[in-house]
This record gives sequence, C-alpha cells and structure tokens, in this order.
Amino acid sequence: MIIDCHGHFTTVPQRFREWRTRQVDAANDPANAPAPKDAIITDDEIRQGVGSGQLRLQQEREGDLTLFSPIAGLMSHHLGNEQTSLVWAEVSNNNVKRVCELYPDNFVPVCQLPQSPGAPPANSIPELRRCVEEMGFVGCNINPDPTGGYWTGKPFTDREWYPLFEAMCELDVPGMVHVAASCNPNFHGTGAHYLNADTSVFMQILQSSLFQDFPTLRLIIPHGGGAVPYHWGRYRGMSLELAQRPLEGLFDNIFFDTCVYHHPGVELLTKVIPTANVLFGSEMIGAVRGKDPDTGHYFDDTKRYVDACEALTDADRQLIFEGNARRVFPRLDAQLKAKGL
Amino acid sequence: MIIDCHGHFTTVPQRFREWRTRQVDAANDPANAPAPKDAIITDDEIRQGVGSGQLRLQQEREGDLTLFSPIAGLMSHHLGNEQTSLVWAEVSNNNVKRVCELYPDNFVPVCQLPQSPGAPPANSIPELRRCVEEMGFVGCNINPDPTGGYWTGKPFTDREWYPLFEAMCELDVPGMVHVAASCNPNFHGTGAHYLNADTSVFMQILQSSLFQDFPTLRLIIPHGGGAVPYHWGRYRGMSLELAQRPLEGLFDNIFFDTCVYHHPGVELLTKVIPTANVLFGSEMIGAVRGKDPDTGHYFDDTKRYVDACEALTDADRQLIFEGNARRVFPRLDAQLKAKGL
Repeated sequence: MIIDCHGHFTTVPQRFREWRTRQVDAANDPANAPAPKDAIITDDEIRQGVGSGQLRLQQEREGDLTLFSPIAGLMSHHLGNEQTSLVWAEVSNNNVKRVCELYPDNFVPVCQLPQSPGAPPANSIPELRRCVEEMGFVGCNINPDPTGGYWTGKPFTDREWYPLFEAMCELDVPGMVHVAASCNPNFHGTGAHYLNADTSVFMQILQSSLFQDFPTLRLIIPHGGGAVPYHWGRYRGMSLELAQRPLEGLFDNIFFDTCVYHHPGVELLTKVIPTANVLFGSEMIGAVRGKDPDTGHYFDDTKRYVDACEALTDADRQLIFEGNARRVFPRLDAQLKAKGL
Repeated sequence: MIIDCHGHFTTVPQRFREWRTRQVDAANDPANAPAPKDAIITDDEIRQGVGSGQLRLQQEREGDLTLFSPIAGLMSHHLGNEQTSLVWAEVSNNNVKRVCELYPDNFVPVCQLPQSPGAPPANSIPELRRCVEEMGFVGCNINPDPTGGYWTGKPFTDREWYPLFEAMCELDVPGMVHVAASCNPNFHGTGAHYLNADTSVFMQILQSSLFQDFPTLRLIIPHGGGAVPYHWGRYRGMSLELAQRPLEGLFDNIFFDTCVYHHPGVELLTKVIPTANVLFGSEMIGAVRGKDPDTGHYFDDTKRYVDACEALTDADRQLIFEGNARRVFPRLDAQLKAKGL
C-alpha cells in the first residue's frame, strides 16, 4: 500500500475561496458574515476538484491513500480574528471530511486548527477533539507562525503550546508543522516561508527539552525538513555543542516527508535520515504543478524519486510508503485494520 | 591554490566585543561613546586570535588564502542607529584590514557595510568605496535583513537597493548575501536565520528581474545556498511557472559556497549546481566548532567533503578551490597576478 502523508484540498471551487474573502471582510462585522452553510462544497464540486485532480493523479501514480487536509495557504491564521479562524477551521475541516466520505478508500482526513495571532494554542483543542473524536481525523497541521511570516509570536517550544501538545499525546495524533500563506513580502509562501518554517522549528526543537516533556509527541517536518537534511552535519554539530546530546535522540519524535521535487534531494534525504523517519509525501497539486521539461514527469511525482533511490531495499520502501505512516498515525492504522488492510 | 571564500574574524579579543557593547549602550549618548581608536586590535591580539585560530587551521587543512570579513553575527545592524552602524563598520573593516596586512599571503579583505533598519542601502556606498578603492578590499557582505530577524524591510530586489548594486558593478566587486545575528527568538542565528535568509533571497531573485537590470552583478549565496540546492527541483519548477524562464539563467550571476558540514550535502551541491557556480568556503571557527565524533574531523573542514566527491574531476576541483573565486572576485585575481600567482 502506498500512503501519501501530505495532501491538501487545493482544488476547492472558486466559490469557496470567495466565501473566505467575504468572511475575512466581515471579520469585524459579524451581522454581515457569510453563513457557514454556504461554504459547504457539493459532491459535484468535489468530484470536479478532487476527482479529476488529486484522485486521478493518485491513481495514475499508483498510490492508494492520501492523508488529506485543508489547503495550507488558505489557512491564513493571520487574517481576521480568533472567531474568524474558528469558523474557517470548522468549514474547512468539514469539507475535507466530505471528501473522505465521498472517496473513503482514497482519502483520510487531517485537520486544520483555529489558531490566531496572540490566541493561546490551547484554544485549538476543542476543534482538534471534534475532528479526531467525532469525525475520524487522524492528525493535525499546526502552524508555528500564525502571524503569516512576521514571526512575532513565541517559539513552538514555548510552554504556551504545551496544552495543545498534551491533547495531541492524549488523542495519539501526530502534528505536521506547517505554516500558511506569507503576508511578508520578503518571504514567498511556498518558495521561502514553508521551508524557513521547517528549518526554524527543527532548530527550536534542537535547543529545547520538548521531547523530554512529551516523550510520545510525534511531529512531521514537511517539505523534506526544509534545509535540515541538507545541513545535517551542521545540526549534528550544533546539537552536540548547544544541547550536549546527539541529534539522533530526536528520531523517536521527529519525522520528515519526501516533498522534495528532484531525485538528488530525495536521495540525500533517504541517505542521511533513517528509513524509519521518512514518510512518503508529495503535496501534489501544490507548490509546483508543472512537468519537468527534462523528464516529462511532474515535479511533484515524488514516488519516482523514491523508487530511483538504489540504496533502498524493498523493506525500506515498504516503511517509507506505508509502515512509517501507520506507526506515526496510529488512528490511521486502526482504520485500515478495521477494513482488513 | 586553495581559496576559502568565506571566513570571518570570529576570533576577536573579548576587549573588542566589550567595546561594541559600550558603543551600542551609548548609541543615543554620543558624548560618552567609546573612541574608535580604542577598538583597534593589536598585532599580538591578532596573532593570538587569527594566528592560532584561522591561520593555523588554514595551514593544517592545506589551504592557502581566505577571503576574510568582520564577524557576521556581530554586524548586528539592528542595534543602535545608522551612525552606530557606520562607526562599527569602519572599525570592523579596519581591523580586518590589519589582519590582512599582518598575514598578506593568507588573508584578503572583504568588508561589512554600515546598514541600519530603514536607512537607504545607498548610504553604504561611501564605506564600500573606502574599503575597495583605498584599502584593497575585494568584496562585501550585504545583509538582506538589517532588522535582525523581523524582516520588516523591503525585499533585496526592491529598487531601494539599486544604487548599492550599481556601485558594486562599477567597482566590480561581488556581494555575499549574509545576515547578522537574530534578535527574533523564533530564529536561532546560525541554526535558522542564516539558512532562511539564503533561501528567502534566492527566491526573491527568482521572482525578480534583478539580473536583467544588473547583468554583471555577482552574488554569493552562502551556507551552500540555504535550502536551495536540496530543493532544486522545486525552484526549477517555480521558475518555469512564476517567471516563465529556466532557473539556469541565474547562473551568470549567482554562486554558492561549500559551507555545508557533511559529505552528502556537499555531494548534492556539486551534483546539482554547475561546477562553475560553486566556490570553496568553510566559514571556519564559525557556527559549528566541534569535531564529528564519528570521524574525528572538524565539522567545518569542508575541504574533506569536496575531496571526497568522486564525480568531480581535477579540473572541477581547480575551479571550486581557486578558479571560480578568481573569476567572481576580479580584484582578488588582480592582486594575486600582481604577486605572480
């Protein structure tokens, strides 16, 4: 089985994006806010967006299942206020759930949280519980910078985040550390802000005692870990110097996906990071949607790059494509086992 | 000849750091500012710092020459005001010049600029001219984020930077795009801010027409280009989609150093980036000062990683170790030729 741990509902209809615009415009004018019921995406719209998009590509690329979450760029926790983010998370998660109900063999839901600049991360716990306990979500995306690229909040390892981490441990759901759109003109969203966030949070964790405090917390650093595996020697050295411990101690809790859009990058990732810590991911129909003119294949067809890593054994590939995702997302594993898979 | 394009005067005496503290403390109290003459580092202090530090390691590692600039973390353009930065750049550059006079066969000077948040980059031109025209400096470090990690200024490709780029082209000196210390608790300096800046500026350039406007401008993205070579497929795809041109068009103007502290990283760099665009660098006695317990060698002994890249020919190594630096830094080449080298 091939499980893509990193998919977003990027193929929402334009109508849904317009709903969001109206919602943000009315953030301080609740009497004129659009109704959540008008944000529901229809079955036909899902078939048109996901059916002819992510589902088609999943099948063409011989994948089986995608962990599916709301479109990351649209999370935009910096827009509106905390109430805006709450309603937006609810409608976005509900729509993702609808996709997974329409295509139950192909998509499993992962939720967005109702974060907002300055709001305590603990305030996201009720929506996390609703998604996991009532709707079968198996994980969440956590935004380490709800300010959208200005980074004026507290580091991800600050104790203000601890109640959320406690809830994640109790529910046994991992988190993908994933920022949203950038409103800072210095940072292109998918070309800089995403990768910078991956790198920055990894370094924050390196300096912290986060996993001593939460030995069962599991975090996925997406986009191949930002700059981290490429600079693995730098981080190994800094961990020894700054934290007086080997970097490898993080491997019980930190995982990387394969959203690296060329073979040499995926080869480095799988060479430097233990197989048990690499999860197949593509973020397809995301940051880079075109085909490589040199090969004729989509840049984000990351399965090809994993397949081409000659040093990997069949057992390694089984872990990267399936086994690791089932271990890191126990609720996914339980759902699959209940289906006899 | 082996030229290290990326060295900083990190081994300054404690007395010099204390002078800087007093200078910043007196930023708004000029009557009590410390005298610039008290910031002069003595020959004995240079011998103790550089002689037993960078020079010793350069020789142990069979290097010949290091392009040497003021310590990057201490540039801290966000501290004090524009006058603070001007005096600080002058004393820092003067001390680097002193190192190069004491060890003329081993170090060639690269300058820091007197940038300050909100100050026009054009205001740095007089100090650049002083260093290049009067003191034999061959390049400069440009800080794309003088705010120290809050990134509230304009992108590096904004026209406010253009007068500085014009001066660099006229003087025929390249710039290394190098941030200073981070005052944002979300970003560890050498563990996140440095790499993020490298990545962010590369993406800004990808989106811009900078090199159409300045066809002879040459920029070095340090630390192996941040996350860029690891995500080369992402950038290739984004360049085709966003800028409607192949990413490879940047290779007349953009260069990467080898400050990547493990062999797989340097191997990826030299595999993905053309040999003509890779300059040997170590940033020794910098971010990672320890030895790799697995090998017994210093993490920042990057020559070993280049030597171990089996796909490189002797001609490739000559370019990476010497030829590219002489091409990118024409004033260095002229100085070496004047010595018969």
